[in-house]
Amino acid sequence: MTPASKHGVYRGFRRSTGVGALPGSTERETAPISEKCRLTRISYNVTLAEEEVIDTVAELNEDVPEDRVYWFRLEGIADPETLRRLGEAFEIHPLALEDVVNTHQRCKVEDYGDHLFVVIRLPVREANGSMTTEQVSLFIGEGFVVSIHEGCNALEVVRERIMTARGRVREYGADYLAYAILDLVIDNYFPIIEKIGDRLNAIDEQLESGFEPGQRLAIRDVRADLLLLRRTVWPQREAIAVLMRDECTLITDVTRTYLRDCYDHTIQLMDVIETYRELCADLRDFHLADISLRSNEVMKTLTVIATLFMPLSFIAGFYGMNFQHMPELRMRYAYPMTICLMLTIAGGFLYFFRRKGWI
Amino acid sequence: MTPASKHGVYRGFRRSTGVGALPGSTERETAPISEKCRLTRISYNVTLAEEEVIDTVAELNEDVPEDRVYWFRLEGIADPETLRRLGEAFEIHPLALEDVVNTHQRCKVEDYGDHLFVVIRLPVREANGSMTTEQVSLFIGEGFVVSIHEGCNALEVVRERIMTARGRVREYGADYLAYAILDLVIDNYFPIIEKIGDRLNAIDEQLESGFEPGQRLAIRDVRADLLLLRRTVWPQREAIAVLMRDECTLITDVTRTYLRDCYDHTIQLMDVIETYRELCADLRDFHLADISLRSNEVMKTLTVIATLFMPLSFIAGFYGMNFQHMPELRMRYAYPMTICLMLTIAGGFLYFFRRKGWI
Amino acid sequence: MTPASKHGVYRGFRRSTGVGALPGSTERETAPISEKCRLTRISYNVTLAEEEVIDTVAELNEDVPEDRVYWFRLEGIADPETLRRLGEAFEIHPLALEDVVNTHQRCKVEDYGDHLFVVIRLPVREANGSMTTEQVSLFIGEGFVVSIHEGCNALEVVRERIMTARGRVREYGADYLAYAILDLVIDNYFPIIEKIGDRLNAIDEQLESGFEPGQRLAIRDVRADLLLLRRTVWPQREAIAVLMRDECTLITDVTRTYLRDCYDHTIQLMDVIETYRELCADLRDFHLADISLRSNEVMKTLTVIATLFMPLSFIAGFYGMNFQHMPELRMRYAYPMTICLMLTIAGGFLYFFRRKGWI
Amino acid sequence: MTPASKHGVYRGFRRSTGVGALPGSTERETAPISEKCRLTRISYNVTLAEEEVIDTVAELNEDVPEDRVYWFRLEGIADPETLRRLGEAFEIHPLALEDVVNTHQRCKVEDYGDHLFVVIRLPVREANGSMTTEQVSLFIGEGFVVSIHEGCNALEVVRERIMTARGRVREYGADYLAYAILDLVIDNYFPIIEKIGDRLNAIDEQLESGFEPGQRLAIRDVRADLLLLRRTVWPQREAIAVLMRDECTLITDVTRTYLRDCYDHTIQLMDVIETYRELCADLRDFHLADISLRSNEVMKTLTVIATLFMPLSFIAGFYGMNFQHMPELRMRYAYPMTICLMLTIAGGFLYFFRRKGWI
Amino acid sequence: MTPASKHGVYRGFRRSTGVGALPGSTERETAPISEKCRLTRISYNVTLAEEEVIDTVAELNEDVPEDRVYWFRLEGIADPETLRRLGEAFEIHPLALEDVVNTHQRCKVEDYGDHLFVVIRLPVREANGSMTTEQVSLFIGEGFVVSIHEGCNALEVVRERIMTARGRVREYGADYLAYAILDLVIDNYFPIIEKIGDRLNAIDEQLESGFEPGQRLAIRDVRADLLLLRRTVWPQREAIAVLMRDECTLITDVTRTYLRDCYDHTIQLMDVIETYRELCADLRDFHLADISLRSNEVMKTLTVIATLFMPLSFIAGFYGMNFQHMPELRMRYAYPMTICLMLTIAGGFLYFFRRKGWI
Repeated sequence: MTPASKHGVYRGFRRSTGVGALPGSTERETAPISEKCRLTRISYNVTLAEEEVIDTVAELNEDVPEDRVYWFRLEGIADPETLRRLGEAFEIHPLALEDVVNTHQRCKVEDYGDHLFVVIRLPVREANGSMTTEQVSLFIGEGFVVSIHEGCNALEVVRERIMTARGRVREYGADYLAYAILDLVIDNYFPIIEKIGDRLNAIDEQLESGFEPGQRLAIRDVRADLLLLRRTVWPQREAIAVLMRDECTLITDVTRTYLRDCYDHTIQLMDVIETYRELCADLRDFHLADISLRSNEVMKTLTVIATLFMPLSFIAGFYGMNFQHMPELRMRYAYPMTICLMLTIAGGFLYFFRRKGWI
Repeated sequence: MTPASKHGVYRGFRRSTGVGALPGSTERETAPISEKCRLTRISYNVTLAEEEVIDTVAELNEDVPEDRVYWFRLEGIADPETLRRLGEAFEIHPLALEDVVNTHQRCKVEDYGDHLFVVIRLPVREANGSMTTEQVSLFIGEGFVVSIHEGCNALEVVRERIMTARGRVREYGADYLAYAILDLVIDNYFPIIEKIGDRLNAIDEQLESGFEPGQRLAIRDVRADLLLLRRTVWPQREAIAVLMRDECTLITDVTRTYLRDCYDHTIQLMDVIETYRELCADLRDFHLADISLRSNEVMKTLTVIATLFMPLSFIAGFYGMNFQHMPELRMRYAYPMTICLMLTIAGGFLYFFRRKGWI
Repeated sequence: MTPASKHGVYRGFRRSTGVGALPGSTERETAPISEKCRLTRISYNVTLAEEEVIDTVAELNEDVPEDRVYWFRLEGIADPETLRRLGEAFEIHPLALEDVVNTHQRCKVEDYGDHLFVVIRLPVREANGSMTTEQVSLFIGEGFVVSIHEGCNALEVVRERIMTARGRVREYGADYLAYAILDLVIDNYFPIIEKIGDRLNAIDEQLESGFEPGQRLAIRDVRADLLLLRRTVWPQREAIAVLMRDECTLITDVTRTYLRDCYDHTIQLMDVIETYRELCADLRDFHLADISLRSNEVMKTLTVIATLFMPLSFIAGFYGMNFQHMPELRMRYAYPMTICLMLTIAGGFLYFFRRKGWI
Repeated sequence: MTPASKHGVYRGFRRSTGVGALPGSTERETAPISEKCRLTRISYNVTLAEEEVIDTVAELNEDVPEDRVYWFRLEGIADPETLRRLGEAFEIHPLALEDVVNTHQRCKVEDYGDHLFVVIRLPVREANGSMTTEQVSLFIGEGFVVSIHEGCNALEVVRERIMTARGRVREYGADYLAYAILDLVIDNYFPIIEKIGDRLNAIDEQLESGFEPGQRLAIRDVRADLLLLRRTVWPQREAIAVLMRDECTLITDVTRTYLRDCYDHTIQLMDVIETYRELCADLRDFHLADISLRSNEVMKTLTVIATLFMPLSFIAGFYGMNFQHMPELRMRYAYPMTICLMLTIAGGFLYFFRRKGWI
Repeated sequence: MTPASKHGVYRGFRRSTGVGALPGSTERETAPISEKCRLTRISYNVTLAEEEVIDTVAELNEDVPEDRVYWFRLEGIADPETLRRLGEAFEIHPLALEDVVNTHQRCKVEDYGDHLFVVIRLPVREANGSMTTEQVSLFIGEGFVVSIHEGCNALEVVRERIMTARGRVREYGADYLAYAILDLVIDNYFPIIEKIGDRLNAIDEQLESGFEPGQRLAIRDVRADLLLLRRTVWPQREAIAVLMRDECTLITDVTRTYLRDCYDHTIQLMDVIETYRELCADLRDFHLADISLRSNEVMKTLTVIATLFMPLSFIAGFYGMNFQHMPELRMRYAYPMTICLMLTIAGGFLYFFRRKGWI
């Protein structure tokens, strides 16, 4: 008998009398409760858009006009109590709530009848240059979207488009809002992919110009990043396909057309990732061939030098023997003839190496 | 005409008059019969939970109240006689019974009409650090679950949740109990996977900091463990999918929602295993490149030294020849000039190597 | 109430009152607006064919005869204003228009109810020999085709066939025209593939005749080109399959038969590309084996020389020692015997190497 | 009008008047006709079991009781005449007969309406340790099974179970008999797989303890055996799946349950084979890394020795020069100082190598 | 109103009034027109078989009896005019005709309603030992088959079987004739595959017995042949599957049974090809391991020799120094002691190498 349910404003809500013990823990062990989060309610229709900060969960039950789309936006690390109350207010299935708290979920879409639960991963470039992903959880009901995200300004663009009436968000319903958020998240992958493309290009050019032992580290890092990206993007594609295929009435045909565009983007992402992975493998093979080739070159140098000087040294050593009866030693032209012999041998080997293409 | 069938308490049981010769042997050759096993019956509903140790199979036919869920839990290595009687009491298909005895089954779900037979494998870390898996067999009927497991305390957590009424096990039926057991078994894989992740990390860091011939053994061991894990987890995914898809009335919709969560976990497991396998392959390739690179470095050192000293040694040897007519030997400045020549040659080669990037 | 809609000439057009804000930007950042594009309208039926240059979008709304097929052909880099007006005139979905502007689309077919949107990529060989692809966008409606292409003369062949009534284009409808364009684009891949085949052949012959460090660069370049080709052709196959499968009434059965031929060509393309990729991988492996083999050969030369001369040098050095009490030095036949010893050793080693197959 | 057809005992038989020219040759070129084969007829039901040797095909048409299952068992290399007559008597399709004669068939199931034709391959370990497979052909009709097998005692176990009434073969029909034979054949793969597992283990241990050039031969042999096994087992899985799926009334539901068990076994076989193949690949890679590592070690030894002695030899050679004006030669402490210099150089290099981890 | 259409003898023919411009060119640029081709008509039924050479296309329209199967067999390089007229007479779709002329088609089946168009590739061993394939095009209609083949005697076997009434060709209709041709073509692959098996065997034995640099060329050639074979056989399997699946009434159930046999053969072909490809890859890896192993062996020899003689040479050089104050030089037993020292060092190293397993 809360006002919300009385008016049926958030139409997906069914008020249950007693939820009982929650399956799975919403307690977050690692994050301190003291960290603040911010819950705002943006409500809009074609003609107007309002934003309020919700300070207490009680405010959620306030009397609100029916002809609007509501976007509840929870940013920062939520304290478990807020999450639990939110879960109660929106009748979220405890398993979904558990997935919200445990922020290492694979991207997915789950249909809980009156609302859809979507987990999507936002790529973030960390300070030290390495890539990571943050979880964005969405609950899509009839007339409302709840978004939960630890980071802070990722969804700002969508908020701005609503407040300034840019684009079409305000013309359509909650499903289009969900699409806009999904689209934004997926668009965030493109600069990351481009950056990886630049790194591959740099490695490629380096490989061509000269050899650098550090290249194998660079290649390995790119491969690891691509592996992570693939693991993240692949289920994304699936999730959007589920949203498109789903018979559930929450997604309208108009939005479905836009989701198809979104789907195309993930396909394109996968395409580029797979191509980069193959390029990366090629670079690695090329790098290995390079090492072999350089070893070969080093060995050739060694062989040329050794083959040239070993016979000469032997001859020198030979006439350095101290036998008393070595008739050559006393011959007048033995010395120049020995030099000639040496030059001939050296010349012969040099000709042989030249013909082999070793020098 | 046993009491059990009279009351229809274990509703899946059909009493057959004569079973005849069992197909497949329930005799266990390798395990000694003398080892004891423990059969307990846990019965519960929302308001109460009881646990009894069953000493004789005859007790199974006792008069029991109908409004409860029964969990028959056989732990330790069962003697064949007990298994045979249990099989008779619960009308288990001889092939299923054979699968219980032969504990190297692949994870699977089989539908025998009035009961489901589920084999699932519990990962166990052995004393010597290597990983292995133990078989947990489940028979799920209407109102009862029979679990058979050689190990001892793996399912303790579920028992405790029933006895202390934590979680929701007591609110739902036998199918939820089966889910709880499955979920517990799958949760056991995560720490094992994490451990493997740590080992991969350790190898990775080691590879970067320095070279260690033992690394290839470490990589091989991780690969073997991942291979075993994949072989175990892959059919698990399939089995849970069968449980979810199955039209059989034994699994309720509520439990199906929870099974979907379970399914998600196995997908996530597969995901991590596959990623780790690729990382492992990358590490191996990296290791191989490392060996090549180090061979290259060793060879360079050899080549530099040999190329430097061979010509010098030749010159030294040359003027060590004992020809009587070597005019240089008597020249005043021949010695310093020879030293100069040697220094020039050495310097030339050093410059050449520096330019090649070898030193 | 424009004449076009009044007469229903371009039958796929629905006149909307206000389109509002376009989703996605049609502004092209990188290309300067000043660059001209050319919009021509070719209209034909079995008996006649006319071509006009359209200078203003307003002309599109002119009164035109109904019994013709219209081909609007936009070549060069379109300025955004033209595109926007064209989009309005033909009621193109803003997402499709966005895909036209962003010329890095993957090949695809999208069904917008009254018109199909097809993106296909035309392969172009650049001045520096490297391959790239240009985007050709097609809108296929009932009775008209709009083609948008940055390059200039790629579709000239089709235009000529219409104007000179060669082939069957003029006998059939707009769908056949679309097929003719698709077929032309796909035919452009074959000379490119053939060129790659030639390059592979050249590398193959080179590998057989002699070793060339540059080969690994050549192989890598071919692999990269094949990767790009595969990425381009693969979705083409899919797109044509969609056109063939599609229940939409825009494609007639006659054209479907021709599309099947087109589909066969892409299958053949894929086939050759995959085969070339495998050949390329084989060449690379062969090249690597070659490097190893040559290193082996180099090492053998070194080993033979070193093994031959090291013992000899040692003997020479031995008798170069300056001990006062070395009885051999004074022996009459010590010198020739030493020479004999050296020859014996050298001969022994040579025999040993010959038997090993090293020389 | 033969007695058999009159009574309709072998219910699958339709008597044709004239078969005409057989498609495909049943003449066996390679096998000598003179080799004898043995045809026995085992007939049984729950209460009795009889076995007769059939000497002439004419006996097949004898009057036989209807309420039994008949198993015609042809062992050894059949002479073509017998096969032809058998084919006529049982109305076997000439293509099936051709497949019986040509004993290199892939495992398969073919449905000829009134009888099923099953080819399955029995693994046999030859005298020289290598593995091969023999073909077992089965015709399954209503009330009878015909088994044709070149070898002799492979199906003895099933015969014994029938004669001594062990197991359930006598309780069920001809389809269960076919299952029993299939199960027996598949069970024969397990010891073979185990043997391969032992070989892999042996190689693994050997690799760890020391290096052995023969290992690569051992690995290759295991790989070849696994390849053969995979090629044999894979179609087996398919064939059993066909038997299970088939709507044909020849397989009863009871037998289908048992076939499911059989199917599980082939899945398990495939699983182990694939795992072993990957292990084998890992062993090979490990072996290759081993070779590289050992080359590296050898090269290090060489480099250490060469780097140590080349400079020293140079110094020795240097003071072996015969210049008349070498002031050092006459200095009193030149000799011990040179020794010191040499020791310093040697020590420096040894320190350098120690720090590099080469010694 | 030609006789043929009047009588409806070739029942698949619909007489069109005017075909118009042919899509695709039937002009063959590369082949000279002057080369003759031979068109024969074989007509048969159970009781008789006739063969006539058709000299002019006009003869095709002759009055022919209805109760026969007609096989039009065009051998050699057809001149375009004949092909065009044939196309007209049999109402062949211009795209199919284009595929006949362009003899590099992938194997395929196309259903043109009243006739099927089948392209199949016949393997041919060229004079220089390399393998190639020739295209056989079949048009299968009701009561007739048209076969077009550049080569000359490939289909002779089928003709002979018709003329001499061997086999069953004359008992069945045109579809069986088509099957007989397909079967013949596929049977031609088996000797080719066997030859490749022999080559692999030869390489295998060679690899085991000794090392031969040419092996990598042999392996590469086999791989290239297998690649070509796979590319040819794979679509064959698909094409036959289409023929079997097809609901078109041109293929009777009897022929379908035979086609199943044909399908089995292609499956077997694929199987062997894939196995050979894996064997080939194994051989290549083995070969690479061999090269590494041999390099290792070479290096060991070098290292043993160098390590043995370098220290000895140093000692020899040491006592070859010309310092005036070297007390050892004057000692009586310095020389034998030096020899002892050298022997000790050599022995020590030999012992060390023996323990390492290098000699």
